[in-house]
Amino acid sequence: MSDSLHDDSNPALLPAGFRAAGVACGIKNDPDTLDLAVFAADGPVTAAGVFTRNRVCGAPVKVSRERVPGEAVRAVIVNSGNANACTGSRGIADAKLMTAVVAEQLGCDPEAVLVCSTGVIGHYLPIETIVSGIPRVVEELDDSPEAFHTAARAMMTTDTVAKQSVHAVQLSDGSCRVSGAAKGAAMIGPNMATMLAVVMTDAPLTASQADSVLRQAVDASFNSISVEGHTSTSDSVLLLAGGDSRGRAGNLEQADLQAVATAVTRVCQDLARAIVADAEGADHLVQIDVGGLRTRAEAELIARTIADDALVKTAITGNDPNWGRIVSCCGRTGVELVENDITLSINGTRIFEKGVPVEYDEALLSTSMRDAPQVEIELIFPFGEESTRFWTCDLTTEYVRLNSEYTT
Amino acid sequence: MSDSLHDDSNPALLPAGFRAAGVACGIKNDPDTLDLAVFAADGPVTAAGVFTRNRVCGAPVKVSRERVPGEAVRAVIVNSGNANACTGSRGIADAKLMTAVVAEQLGCDPEAVLVCSTGVIGHYLPIETIVSGIPRVVEELDDSPEAFHTAARAMMTTDTVAKQSVHAVQLSDGSCRVSGAAKGAAMIGPNMATMLAVVMTDAPLTASQADSVLRQAVDASFNSISVEGHTSTSDSVLLLAGGDSRGRAGNLEQADLQAVATAVTRVCQDLARAIVADAEGADHLVQIDVGGLRTRAEAELIARTIADDALVKTAITGNDPNWGRIVSCCGRTGVELVENDITLSINGTRIFEKGVPVEYDEALLSTSMRDAPQVEIELIFPFGEESTRFWTCDLTTEYVRLNSEYTT
Repeated sequence: MSDSLHDDSNPALLPAGFRAAGVACGIKNDPDTLDLAVFAADGPVTAAGVFTRNRVCGAPVKVSRERVPGEAVRAVIVNSGNANACTGSRGIADAKLMTAVVAEQLGCDPEAVLVCSTGVIGHYLPIETIVSGIPRVVEELDDSPEAFHTAARAMMTTDTVAKQSVHAVQLSDGSCRVSGAAKGAAMIGPNMATMLAVVMTDAPLTASQADSVLRQAVDASFNSISVEGHTSTSDSVLLLAGGDSRGRAGNLEQADLQAVATAVTRVCQDLARAIVADAEGADHLVQIDVGGLRTRAEAELIARTIADDALVKTAITGNDPNWGRIVSCCGRTGVELVENDITLSINGTRIFEKGVPVEYDEALLSTSMRDAPQVEIELIFPFGEESTRFWTCDLTTEYVRLNSEYTT
Repeated sequence: MSDSLHDDSNPALLPAGFRAAGVACGIKNDPDTLDLAVFAADGPVTAAGVFTRNRVCGAPVKVSRERVPGEAVRAVIVNSGNANACTGSRGIADAKLMTAVVAEQLGCDPEAVLVCSTGVIGHYLPIETIVSGIPRVVEELDDSPEAFHTAARAMMTTDTVAKQSVHAVQLSDGSCRVSGAAKGAAMIGPNMATMLAVVMTDAPLTASQADSVLRQAVDASFNSISVEGHTSTSDSVLLLAGGDSRGRAGNLEQADLQAVATAVTRVCQDLARAIVADAEGADHLVQIDVGGLRTRAEAELIARTIADDALVKTAITGNDPNWGRIVSCCGRTGVELVENDITLSINGTRIFEKGVPVEYDEALLSTSMRDAPQVEIELIFPFGEESTRFWTCDLTTEYVRLNSEYTT
């Protein structure tokens, strides 16, 4: 696996056969801010998607999820600044029009184009602005790291940094690459929390393999993060796999398929952690490991309850190893347990062991919570072998300020 | 029903046959702060209790719930400043000792005394301090409004005001009274959110009637509020009903029983609203009405999801009628619905009707959110006749500040 950190000296590369572009087309108030991106394959590729489980979902979600898993997808168009959600039949028509205009430019079927939107909900898209911007963004499609970075920036709403990750994969007959870009759950004003990610690979997956690889990756990444537990109307993760262009789809050896799956998972985890770390107002990235449960679902319920708890999150903001709040979260999940089943460590320091408080240096642990790159909460139960890892962030006055600013 | 607002000119009265007292016994750091209360009946009364569903629960919860419903209860002892939770077998012994010392003073069986504790968790009680304070608080028991108020104040942790409510009930053969005191879900430092309430009436209920009346009242009050959705280790609501002292228990006519039940529910609702209005840092009291669902459980799930949503709560902090966040909450509950099933009003202004945004004056509505005594969210669905009413508060920077202060 290659390094996944990207900066000027180590730019994020697209996989072979993919191009990207981002432009400022005028959706956002500031006409110079990037707001329209396209990710395109040179030929038909397979595609898979995982979408929000919110029953109120944006028009782009409704349109895109009908088109995956897909055998011959060519591109994804993404706009920021408007989520095209709660916009009825006109919203659906607008989303379909966006894909049709891209398809016209690329010379493919409209069904071969997927669409994502993020931003304010309940407002119709400025569709003429977008339609007139599409030829320009398609014209700028390029396989350079700069183009990929610009496309990643064009997906952003209140994200402060572009989120990209690349992992190389060594296959038995050569190497390939998995590259992804995401925008995060950053909410301001009337905008919804929306996370979008586009992951591309030149590995030759069938549509069904892409679907299974993506679901497995999303479970261990985007489904294992939470900022405040609010599943948005627009969450979408798309995987484009460049199999067909090489004519090798379906012929991957099992070990090679596993290597691609691992790389896709790592790209998704990098992007998921980057989303949490860049959540509005967040001061601390928090990793929660829960082990020793009877089922994975029990472990996930405990991890998610802690991740979404305002009392735990504010304690972390204050670098306070306030274990009572964590133990109480375990009890309120409804999972069958008593105090004596709980063993808790924070940043490697054992605090509560089988129901008994352990003596520890509170000042030292508080300092480590303040200075370490992430706060690590570990809970061990005696019930079984199932475990999970989850990421969240703290809850700061800045989060409240950003989300309560009067914007109407 | 009498007025439930209490001040110097309209003091809260105890029911006939009940006394109360509060003292500063030295549990809290400041030796002059009230921290020990007793509510006592002159003779044996029936008692019911509803306790936290958190599987990690305090020793007083474990002790008291074995003693209700009770036929011959005499008193409740409450301490603030220490929750006696996560304290193992020593905690149980301490809680039982508190009841035994009260019983010795009152000349009754230890099983006739209930106990509640609220405050820091994971610390043993200063039991000698408490034991030496009990004779003093029992000696001060009095039936005056001043004594009732002092007892209510002694239950407080970071509550800023004492919470009391009294409703008179007209029965076919005379009048009686329902009087309650509560402390709220106000959390600071390593303390847990704990709500405690003691409700007393001179109405002659059997233990089983008291139990059923209390469960019905709690469902419509304390189970219909949320500050941040964290069920604490110590939540307890107790009802003492002075039936036996009059020898009339079990003889109430159905209409009289219903009148008592209504009064108990109103007292509990007053106290529940007072808890939410006095939650740490809260600027807005929020009332959520959800109607037209197939089941009460669906209505409650939708109301609770909105009440606990950080994005909705921060929007209300900013007086922002941000309806997208509320509609999105409906969708993420998992209740079977689509946008077109949702109709939403805020403070009486229709904003979203059957899936379509309605034109309204945003500035006017924002002003009403700022100035009205409470923000009223109303959601109507077309599925059935079931509904619920729920209360919460907003999420402010002050809440985050109070709960993130480093206190170890």
